[in-house]
Amino acid sequence: MIVVKVGGSEGIDLEAFCRDLANCIKSGVDIVLVHGGSHDTNVLSAKLGKPPRFVTSLSGVESRYTDRETLAIFTMVYVGKVNKYIVEQLQKQGVNAVGLSGIDGRLLEGSRKEFIKVVEDGKRKVLRDDYTGKVEKVNVHLVKLLRDNGYTPVITPPAISYESEAINVDGDRAAAVLAAALGAEKLIILSNVPGLLRDVNDASSLVTEIRRDQIERYADFAKGRMKKKVMGAAEALAEGVREVVFADARGENAVSRALEGKGTVIR
Amino acid sequence: MIVVKVGGSEGIDLEAFCRDLANCIKSGVDIVLVHGGSHDTNVLSAKLGKPPRFVTSLSGVESRYTDRETLAIFTMVYVGKVNKYIVEQLQKQGVNAVGLSGIDGRLLEGSRKEFIKVVEDGKRKVLRDDYTGKVEKVNVHLVKLLRDNGYTPVITPPAISYESEAINVDGDRAAAVLAAALGAEKLIILSNVPGLLRDVNDASSLVTEIRRDQIERYADFAKGRMKKKVMGAAEALAEGVREVVFADARGENAVSRALEGKGTVIR
Repeated sequence: MIVVKVGGSEGIDLEAFCRDLANCIKSGVDIVLVHGGSHDTNVLSAKLGKPPRFVTSLSGVESRYTDRETLAIFTMVYVGKVNKYIVEQLQKQGVNAVGLSGIDGRLLEGSRKEFIKVVEDGKRKVLRDDYTGKVEKVNVHLVKLLRDNGYTPVITPPAISYESEAINVDGDRAAAVLAAALGAEKLIILSNVPGLLRDVNDASSLVTEIRRDQIERYADFAKGRMKKKVMGAAEALAEGVREVVFADARGENAVSRALEGKGTVIR
Repeated sequence: MIVVKVGGSEGIDLEAFCRDLANCIKSGVDIVLVHGGSHDTNVLSAKLGKPPRFVTSLSGVESRYTDRETLAIFTMVYVGKVNKYIVEQLQKQGVNAVGLSGIDGRLLEGSRKEFIKVVEDGKRKVLRDDYTGKVEKVNVHLVKLLRDNGYTPVITPPAISYESEAINVDGDRAAAVLAAALGAEKLIILSNVPGLLRDVNDASSLVTEIRRDQIERYADFAKGRMKKKVMGAAEALAEGVREVVFADARGENAVSRALEGKGTVIR
């Protein structure tokens, strides 16, 4: 079984993506889908007069500052807009998809950070009203139940905290934890870049293959959102997933191309 | 088993509602929940510069005019906001809820109206870009699968058309079709009124009991949204549901009160 994660960045044509994904599933590839929705969340946040605010942790990882109001917008977009659009498109292509957030049946569960330490405008700050966290537990039973009965799960953040609060979690790392928990053989992470680039401004600097024991070194090339993808890859590999592929979600046949190993293959 | 439908009108405290619902479920009442989200949809539509437009059919039934843009807003609110809020609250109360829209697994399926004939400003019009329809089929297998495995389904429009388009369907009538398909013994429809009133401006004019063979007559008292509730009730009774209750969703213990028969009981 393969976990495919498709990002929510600008420039990804979800209709084309779903068409190809459906073809892969119908030709027998066994897939669980995880998706994001960051760009649409930024757009809706701005429209609602609550422009997105990104914060950088002391270790240099960027994330969306998610107070309860932002969380509501985040959930509307990820679950109500993107997830339902994907499920509708897959149904149109004959795949019996069922969309689930991490809250449903406590599918993706983890701890909410009590506070986050960030650097903003060069100053250190502590934020306490942030609803973010990290997926630590997966309700494998629910995913298996749906899969065993012919449904294709389409999974999205938010996750749920141990105190039953919806929490914003990173989709790439959630996909990695999910892949490990489900015993997936492969994790494919698709976004709006061709894979891991040595130079982010040069698409021809694609790293095509990484040995799993070298991944820490390559983490240095990773910038911005790619940093979390590399962290997710390392986590998935450490937990038994045999191969992780970073590939391009843009254009036609994105899933097929990634299945052929086009992108950055880590194993 | 009992299907409970809670409306999405103003004045309903969903947190209090979920607390009571969870207590009922934990004390052994076997419940499938359906909910609406109309008020929040109106609010978000207005905020996004796309104020809601209601149209009245030639037979006098009012509905939300739902072009594709409105449908996206509708889905964000019903599925992303209200459904996830309810699931989160139920999880907090120890009920293992799973939220599903009618699109997921083709849970609620029906025909999209090719066009709707409406009266607006005294003029007859034909609208063709409306994504509305009527639930005709229920994926009983999916609901049963979740229930048999300890999950409480929380179900919301939109439904899915036979051509796999998301469609806006009336939540009360969807709940009625669902109750019939699941073989529910009872359908409880909760909204922001005490039940069916002889005079909509007089809360003391509550009709406490209606014999099922008299329901057509009582349809005359029904105004606005109550009209669809009466239509839903008639459909549910015709399909084998033994009892329908219209009751008040406002205040504490809404579900418990309805279970005791407080409201309008039709049987």
